Amino acid sequence: MALIQDLNWRHAVKAYDSTKKVSKEDIDKIVEAARLAPTSSGLQPFKVLVVENQELKEKLVKGALNPECMRDCSHVIIFAGWDRYTADRIDKVYDFTTDERGLERGRFGSYTDKLKEIYLAQPAAENFAHIARQTYIALGLALGQAAELKVDSTPVEGFDNSVVDEILELDKLGLKSVSLMYVGYADAPQDWIAPMKKVRIPTSEFVVEYK
Amino acid sequence: MALIQDLNWRHAVKAYDSTKKVSKEDIDKIVEAARLAPTSSGLQPFKVLVVENQELKEKLVKGALNPECMRDCSHVIIFAGWDRYTADRIDKVYDFTTDERGLERGRFGSYTDKLKEIYLAQPAAENFAHIARQTYIALGLALGQAAELKVDSTPVEGFDNSVVDEILELDKLGLKSVSLMYVGYADAPQDWIAPMKKVRIPTSEFVVEYK
Repeated sequence: MALIQDLNWRHAVKAYDSTKKVSKEDIDKIVEAARLAPTSSGLQPFKVLVVENQELKEKLVKGALNPECMRDCSHVIIFAGWDRYTADRIDKVYDFTTDERGLERGRFGSYTDKLKEIYLAQPAAENFAHIARQTYIALGLALGQAAELKVDSTPVEGFDNSVVDEILELDKLGLKSVSLMYVGYADAPQDWIAPMKKVRIPTSEFVVEYK
Repeated sequence: MALIQDLNWRHAVKAYDSTKKVSKEDIDKIVEAARLAPTSSGLQPFKVLVVENQELKEKLVKGALNPECMRDCSHVIIFAGWDRYTADRIDKVYDFTTDERGLERGRFGSYTDKLKEIYLAQPAAENFAHIARQTYIALGLALGQAAELKVDSTPVEGFDNSVVDEILELDKLGLKSVSLMYVGYADAPQDWIAPMKKVRIPTSEFVVEYK
């Protein structure tokens, strides 16, 4: 029951202690959990940007709804998705996959042809809506991994994507920001939500069973 | 490093052994991980539907791209989001939260007023796009929990949502299906992907660091 215990332990921290830094080892593990997340058709259509640089964090404050957390946390992890699916991007992932598996390239050609047929016919916004969803699987697992390490974190949607994208020049990477995750150690006296009970709707309401 | 080990262990199973059932205890833990997932503003705008009933699974085959998995897995877990945000739904969650915390109702009124201002002005489709994203956090954590228990699973987007919604009459619950998760035990000889190496893009490409 380790993951459940970790999820009960975690909460969305509201204030960080700016003097405490998360170790490189722990950051690497959090990022690794995100990397191992499953994605639709195994396309892994996103990257994570890990910002430890204080000057850059100060710039990102401009786009943050909770500027203190942005400034005081140890690291900001940004989940950024491909701006759209392309034939090249799909081929690159599958070529790498077949190479790694010792299979001939094109082994999954009929499958990738179908993916291209579907995705390339869609507008970029529809592609990105699908891509953005995938990043949330990784966000969930990264939050779980942080909790396992007893590293505090905050999942964040409330920020100005265009500001973040511009400051990090994500267009040059073919990416658009989706969500953020603050990582660090709470400033306990200021973290007003910490003493409050964790509340979830009761299991009897959350689950509908068909036996 | 337990979660990382579990994520390395798991893969999206392609064939299930229909004679093997997952215990109620394990299903409860998988669902609990989903229930504990964080959601935007703590609204928990979704439910999980757990289908063990074989007759119902056979009906759902009609909407499945991988009918054998739907038929042969032990349980199908369906992540279904609110069809839209409403003032009543937001108030119900926050009333429950304040009650559970021993706070007066309305304590977070200025916050929920802002949520209503934003969400109620949006078309239902925009609400649902946001709601659907939240369910993927829970999907990720449920997959991680299944892996911890050494229960096989498959995350599934490839299905006909309208068929699933109709069969389960999700409109009566104010819900729409987002994703599925097959849970069970693999039929190893038929699970063609099992012997293949798990491939993820290298960390050096996946992560962009700003030190």
